[in-house]
Amino acid sequence: MWGHSMTIMAKEIASIPEVVANQLEQTLALYLAQGEHLRQQQPNCLITCARGSSDHAALFFKYLVESKLGVPVCSMGPSIASIYGQPIVTKNASLIAVSQSGGSKDLAALCSKAAQSGLATVALVNNTQSLLSKSAHTVLPIGAGEEKAVAATKTFVCSLVALASIFAGWAQDKDLIKAIHQLPSTLAIALQNNWMPDFAKLAKAKGLFVISRGPGIAIAHEAALKFKETCGLHAEAFSSAEVLHGPIAVAQSNFAALCFATREEAGPGILETIGHLRDAHVPVLETSFSAKRRGALPVTQAHHPLLDPICQIVSFYRAVESLSVQLGGDPDSPALLSKVTVTL
Amino acid sequence: MWGHSMTIMAKEIASIPEVVANQLEQTLALYLAQGEHLRQQQPNCLITCARGSSDHAALFFKYLVESKLGVPVCSMGPSIASIYGQPIVTKNASLIAVSQSGGSKDLAALCSKAAQSGLATVALVNNTQSLLSKSAHTVLPIGAGEEKAVAATKTFVCSLVALASIFAGWAQDKDLIKAIHQLPSTLAIALQNNWMPDFAKLAKAKGLFVISRGPGIAIAHEAALKFKETCGLHAEAFSSAEVLHGPIAVAQSNFAALCFATREEAGPGILETIGHLRDAHVPVLETSFSAKRRGALPVTQAHHPLLDPICQIVSFYRAVESLSVQLGGDPDSPALLSKVTVTL
Repeated sequence: MWGHSMTIMAKEIASIPEVVANQLEQTLALYLAQGEHLRQQQPNCLITCARGSSDHAALFFKYLVESKLGVPVCSMGPSIASIYGQPIVTKNASLIAVSQSGGSKDLAALCSKAAQSGLATVALVNNTQSLLSKSAHTVLPIGAGEEKAVAATKTFVCSLVALASIFAGWAQDKDLIKAIHQLPSTLAIALQNNWMPDFAKLAKAKGLFVISRGPGIAIAHEAALKFKETCGLHAEAFSSAEVLHGPIAVAQSNFAALCFATREEAGPGILETIGHLRDAHVPVLETSFSAKRRGALPVTQAHHPLLDPICQIVSFYRAVESLSVQLGGDPDSPALLSKVTVTL
Repeated sequence: MWGHSMTIMAKEIASIPEVVANQLEQTLALYLAQGEHLRQQQPNCLITCARGSSDHAALFFKYLVESKLGVPVCSMGPSIASIYGQPIVTKNASLIAVSQSGGSKDLAALCSKAAQSGLATVALVNNTQSLLSKSAHTVLPIGAGEEKAVAATKTFVCSLVALASIFAGWAQDKDLIKAIHQLPSTLAIALQNNWMPDFAKLAKAKGLFVISRGPGIAIAHEAALKFKETCGLHAEAFSSAEVLHGPIAVAQSNFAALCFATREEAGPGILETIGHLRDAHVPVLETSFSAKRRGALPVTQAHHPLLDPICQIVSFYRAVESLSVQLGGDPDSPALLSKVTVTL
């Protein structure tokens, strides 16, 4: 199905349905219990702490929690502890740190500082034998197995699954929990969606917007980062509500947009923005759940609309890896990058 | 000093020192009182709500409050109220909405929802006779006078001044308050810094990073937006701690970076990132407070390091307006933009 000898990144993408099945079998109960714990805690706010793809996963959690439960979720820079040494001053709050490697000293510093400040701390981490794990009260495995490719894919998907599960436990949303159980088979179908050759058109653009809103905004950020990392394309993510307030001025020539649809309340606003972009002659590639949107990229419906972004990012990963190879790149060795970047 | 017949944007930039002097005379006491009110409230978290340049101003406030007072500051999307209709569930929190026009229904919706949810709400708004003003418990004027240019400049600067003042009142930081009083004369000097012709080199790049950290990250976001709006340049803002974790892969050819220095704890990390960028052959234009950094863009020291970003953005505005004109653009009529964009 991949049309070329498989890169490590491609193999890891192809493994996602099985990896998620293992993850759910081993740790879904832990995630739901963490959600139940938050439900009982009734925190005044949640603090998230993460970098790169993990920060995009935290953004997904922010939208679920804020739009459905109303609890403020604050993404705090690790520098608050690692550079400024500032205690956190709040009452009845929790911190959730998300990381693949768990090796960054700055994330561990914020996690420790939060614990000293009286917050309950949770590390959602793929490497459970890491510095970050040691600094948190509670360790939740991401459970994606070792990730060898520089560009994170399966750990991002498993982070979304874990955070959706924590949210589902907190919200006691039985429909969502049921849909999470069905994710492995849904993701296997999502993996069949072929967004090439439409994607090849994007490669000719000087720059790209990646647009969504609500639960979809997190995968817009993730897709923009992957375009950069694996294809050298300057893609930037925007909320469909924000892109017309200034950023669109850059899209005068040789610019394109990729828009992720949602099947929930934010959906109509995204379609409206697509209309404005097309009026401004910006070529738009869109995913759609409606057969009426001709030429849209095919998507797989999850068994719950809040899980649709997880299916879409898997279809995206397949396409962006293919595009990287087609452009003559090596997605396993992105320019100027290594797997672990240490920041203080 | 501007080298061409002045655009409306140039006139508004040139007026900034006088505008800030008027603002301080009329409303500094109100800002400080709001800060004192927050000090007494000891909120568990602050929620900010804004779009575009105003959201960048809110980001400046976030870094001041989190790095010096430790109180979590959460930027919440207006959609939580306007699309999802979700009450905010927290105890002892305040919401601060920032807006030039105050005309966006979605900001007003979140402000009203916050008030219904028991939060204290503050509207920092230039047009005090606006929808947003009517929806908030407390109205603080930005006090920049009418802004005619599409690209916000003086309202952004006045928003930073207002938020720095609220923070200063909260922190009871007498040195900072004294330095705020001296801002009009400092900004007049900052306006003399001429970043052309170095800036002209940036225009040849296919894309740009705008980089800073800590209190400087807000002006990195603001500068990136202005490059887009007025020059059609695809500039994207990154923390110096984040840009090496993936985004740098896009900077393989014909890419450049503008880095804003700080005179506080984040400064050394920014310099380290500049070193990495240069090692990767990315041309870097940097501001510097040290005479040792040869070829750096000239900057004006504020009387307090936390106010340096305000001086730097004024010097930047002058340069970006000149660059826009030099590129044959009209900064008063950016492509595809109008002054008020309505979002639901």
